[in-house]
Amino acid sequence: MSQVDNATVSAHLSHVRIVMVNTTLPANIGSALRAMKTMGLSQLVLVAPKTYPHPDIDALAAGATDLIEKIQIVETLEEAIKDCHLVFGTSARSRTIPWPLLDARPAAEKSLDAVVNHQQEIAIVFGREDRGLTNEELALANYHVTIPVNSDYGVLNVAQAIQVICYEMRMAAMDLVGKEVDPNATMHVTETEDMQWDEPLVTHEQMEQFYPHIEKMLADIEFLDPQNPRLLPLRLRRLFGRIQLDRMEYHLLRGIFSRVQALNNGSWKKTEKIDQEKDPQ
Amino acid sequence: MSQVDNATVSAHLSHVRIVMVNTTLPANIGSALRAMKTMGLSQLVLVAPKTYPHPDIDALAAGATDLIEKIQIVETLEEAIKDCHLVFGTSARSRTIPWPLLDARPAAEKSLDAVVNHQQEIAIVFGREDRGLTNEELALANYHVTIPVNSDYGVLNVAQAIQVICYEMRMAAMDLVGKEVDPNATMHVTETEDMQWDEPLVTHEQMEQFYPHIEKMLADIEFLDPQNPRLLPLRLRRLFGRIQLDRMEYHLLRGIFSRVQALNNGSWKKTEKIDQEKDPQ
Repeated sequence: MSQVDNATVSAHLSHVRIVMVNTTLPANIGSALRAMKTMGLSQLVLVAPKTYPHPDIDALAAGATDLIEKIQIVETLEEAIKDCHLVFGTSARSRTIPWPLLDARPAAEKSLDAVVNHQQEIAIVFGREDRGLTNEELALANYHVTIPVNSDYGVLNVAQAIQVICYEMRMAAMDLVGKEVDPNATMHVTETEDMQWDEPLVTHEQMEQFYPHIEKMLADIEFLDPQNPRLLPLRLRRLFGRIQLDRMEYHLLRGIFSRVQALNNGSWKKTEKIDQEKDPQ
Repeated sequence: MSQVDNATVSAHLSHVRIVMVNTTLPANIGSALRAMKTMGLSQLVLVAPKTYPHPDIDALAAGATDLIEKIQIVETLEEAIKDCHLVFGTSARSRTIPWPLLDARPAAEKSLDAVVNHQQEIAIVFGREDRGLTNEELALANYHVTIPVNSDYGVLNVAQAIQVICYEMRMAAMDLVGKEVDPNATMHVTETEDMQWDEPLVTHEQMEQFYPHIEKMLADIEFLDPQNPRLLPLRLRRLFGRIQLDRMEYHLLRGIFSRVQALNNGSWKKTEKIDQEKDPQ
């Protein structure tokens, strides 16, 4: 992504706040800041943190000092989310009554859609290290959000959960920004074929000169019988057709074929042989 | 998801190994195990870890002791990936020459497709805490994989990166397991990679015999200067690394290399020349 796109993504993500309720370990706050900053989020709200401030926060949030300065400390969850339009409560297990529940990915998509298309403010609320959010706190949320995990092992800790949620928020934001602007000069792309390559890929037309060349070379060295080529030409087409050669590779391979042909018909001779003959002397 | 689905997801993910190269901090190994276990992965390979074993690993991997017992320790990256079909190297920045690059999500989709539909073994390789993977290590990968991040802040640490990759692997596995039980989703075949192949794909170990062979052949015909190979070996690795040769193609190409070598050293001679000499008579 270009710097401009990155700034747009960060601008959108500034409307998605992370709320941590009654956090005990300063290290988890530091890790949250680092995860947020890496993914482009910037608003952290701490509801009655057990230990704050603390040097572990600054140590783990190295390089995210601008986010530390922006941290808001409030006394209640209600205060943390009062200006939000859409509140997600993170929940690992089902509660007393069923609640609208989304996995992290659709929750992030819904959040960014709300930010970009409806100018909304979003909160994702994370609970205590030992027992998460209370039923009362979860009831303040519009949706519950869950991260799909191995059901034989239990749940992510809060730092890991924040990491995954922030990652999904960034992916959703990039998706939306990618749709807003034409992403021509991209660093991060999703498909090999679309990536910035150092050489242009060859055309179908060039490949139609490539196949006769490799077949002729293989016929020259009697690896292919032109009278009975069997499946070999087809296999070569399938093999090289699935690479999409770039121009450099194309010329490299055709150069090798030509060298083999020249070796075969005697128009090119090894210099090495002379050296080898000299060596014993 | 039901327990049955969870077991199926874990079974698929047992073919995706996490490889950590020269890890310094035991805490990162512990965090990796925890992230893996939470997402259903089970195979961790440590390449020459700096500190192992260490109580911090067990402390952070609480509840993942079965994974600790399964850890493999090897001396070289080659050993860690020799039986793999598809190797991803994690990379935060661009290198000497561009390499096929995938974001975490499509990389995970490609990996699970390879596991489920083609019975392949996958490795995701993570580098040192301070300087990642070397260019030589990255050149052993079929693809490089990157996690989209805020370009103003830099990169995830190795534990966070493993968390995100494992999460995407689980999401991709769940997607595929979901499709397995949905008969409507199985009829569309749009990608080469999705089709039933007639030959098994070769392993990384086999390819490590392929590259020396093509390089020796090219040196024999003086197309490559072993004293000054420049970027040629890297370009060959990038080219053939992105095809994933099948067994037939592999033997076909190695057969061609051997023929060229035999032609070059005189141990094989054309029969055609005799025919040509006969023709004028």
